[in-house]
Amino acid sequence: MSFRTIEWRDNTVIMIDQTRLPAEEGYNVYTDFQGVAEAIRGMIIRGAPAIGVAAAMGIALGARDIIADTHESFFRQLENVCDVMARTRPTAVNLFWAIARMKRVAEAHRSQKLEAIRTVLKEEAIRVEEEDREICRAIGRNGGPLIPEGATILTHCNAGALATAGYGTALGVIRAAHEAGKKIKVIADETRPWLQGARLTAWELMKDEIPVTLISDNMAGWLMQKGEIDCCVVGADRIAANGDTANKIGTYSVAVLAKEHGIPFYVAAPVSTLDLSLDSGARIPIEERGSAEVTHIQGVGIAPEGVKVRNPAFDVTPARYVSAIITERGVARQDYCESLRKLVQG
Amino acid sequence: MSFRTIEWRDNTVIMIDQTRLPAEEGYNVYTDFQGVAEAIRGMIIRGAPAIGVAAAMGIALGARDIIADTHESFFRQLENVCDVMARTRPTAVNLFWAIARMKRVAEAHRSQKLEAIRTVLKEEAIRVEEEDREICRAIGRNGGPLIPEGATILTHCNAGALATAGYGTALGVIRAAHEAGKKIKVIADETRPWLQGARLTAWELMKDEIPVTLISDNMAGWLMQKGEIDCCVVGADRIAANGDTANKIGTYSVAVLAKEHGIPFYVAAPVSTLDLSLDSGARIPIEERGSAEVTHIQGVGIAPEGVKVRNPAFDVTPARYVSAIITERGVARQDYCESLRKLVQG
Repeated sequence: MSFRTIEWRDNTVIMIDQTRLPAEEGYNVYTDFQGVAEAIRGMIIRGAPAIGVAAAMGIALGARDIIADTHESFFRQLENVCDVMARTRPTAVNLFWAIARMKRVAEAHRSQKLEAIRTVLKEEAIRVEEEDREICRAIGRNGGPLIPEGATILTHCNAGALATAGYGTALGVIRAAHEAGKKIKVIADETRPWLQGARLTAWELMKDEIPVTLISDNMAGWLMQKGEIDCCVVGADRIAANGDTANKIGTYSVAVLAKEHGIPFYVAAPVSTLDLSLDSGARIPIEERGSAEVTHIQGVGIAPEGVKVRNPAFDVTPARYVSAIITERGVARQDYCESLRKLVQG
Repeated sequence: MSFRTIEWRDNTVIMIDQTRLPAEEGYNVYTDFQGVAEAIRGMIIRGAPAIGVAAAMGIALGARDIIADTHESFFRQLENVCDVMARTRPTAVNLFWAIARMKRVAEAHRSQKLEAIRTVLKEEAIRVEEEDREICRAIGRNGGPLIPEGATILTHCNAGALATAGYGTALGVIRAAHEAGKKIKVIADETRPWLQGARLTAWELMKDEIPVTLISDNMAGWLMQKGEIDCCVVGADRIAANGDTANKIGTYSVAVLAKEHGIPFYVAAPVSTLDLSLDSGARIPIEERGSAEVTHIQGVGIAPEGVKVRNPAFDVTPARYVSAIITERGVARQDYCESLRKLVQG
């Protein structure tokens, strides 16, 4: 991988700025937790696993900067740091998973000196990042075999190296198939309104010399009808206990189209994306973002001024459309209530 | 209607420039047939019925400018004008319908003086334009009753006043329902890559104070799942004898989603859009346009340089997804082979 999505270096957090890609490969340096929170909210970094890593690193930065005489004061302020991080974006559960993990680690070391707790939190954040890359490799190993030789694979949004600490979830599966010499091709939905497919997926696949063709989201159905797509692989922002999957807006439409054409539809995500506390996708909170993402593209207006807009950032694909959920611990299939629980419980 | 899509005035053809909308309501004046052909190719004017009107007016302009001593020379040159017009865009059959109509009229007056033939062609072109507006009103009268009171209607692309000589086909149905006081609301797919929905449909509905909400194409499925869409109405570029319908890319996906959610999916088009010479949609030629429409939006790049692109401008919706085809002569339903033939034969 010739770039790093997010990195802890010299007590700062460095992120590739995903709002500037592909025109510019620029890196931002964050020195405090507020900056990291703002980066998550402003989608400098995005993708459920990457958001989890960023939250962990943001909390480590926040912990480092807390001025406290007592453990009580430190933990109260740490709670505040975690709250700020939790309010950045509502849908990706990896954010809350990472926050909970950092809190747990801090609590487990409560008896130690503050300096030691700060160090432990920093180390934990770095571990979250390293583990995420390993997890993506494992998702690739588990999912790669599902991809047929010579397949053309549709993906939506960016569930790639840029959405994780590296390698990717959906694109991890694709990378693994590519590395296995399967001569695959990728069709990337551009993924309006934020254009993660056009800007990020196309960019990182071209960088890795994996054949990629860009389409507008509304072309996928037609290509399926023409027999030009063999399977679909997407990431996830939150998966309920029954397998219902929240992912980037448009994923549900891809899933319906895949079903209509008898094409397998795979979801690739780490176990940290599972939210078994929710019995179904109906309870997953769906972020609605501002109208400018729809009315403007890279600052250029494309619609009449003052037009009313809907901008749900995610949708929920009911489990019945999902052929399999590929995780680092294995591949789950219907009935997901049972198969996902088994994966989580080991 | 506070604007004219296309108009014959003082031996010129005036068109609203649809590439500049909605930022600017500008009108272009064309003085020769080559200019009109270029305007069709460059999508200054688009929409199947409007393309038909433009072709007729372009041929009238061409006929006026032909320098010929003999009828033979005149008709040979007229054939050339028609050929240039026919090579502008391949999918909308209204183009070929209008060309054939103009040829027929010229032939019918072959015994007259050249000046008289030129005049007849001019009058015929103006008649095509006037008739188209009447046809749209009739489509509205026939289709309006299909729209339920208080319905939220999804439309794709622009099958509005801007796609016709005025009033519109799909938007004609919507306008008729609105004029009947049904308190309808419209959801407009932005319609990538060319953004006809964001730029044109939103603009003309706002001008007419018909409530419109703009979404990215990939949001339609989610809104259907949430029960927020009651029916779909779209236009058509060519309808085969069996009811298979070519229309703007993305239409097929909307139709599949509508079927999956049990939502009626209506096609609204004049009889001139029927191509009964084709037994099915498989034989409709589908235009593939340049990659820049996908990689750039209003001149701004949104994808990595050199990325491979697919850009089919249309897709074909098999008749089984179409709840009804609304024409100026009545509403056709399955079996379309029979119902469409009856409409054409009167």
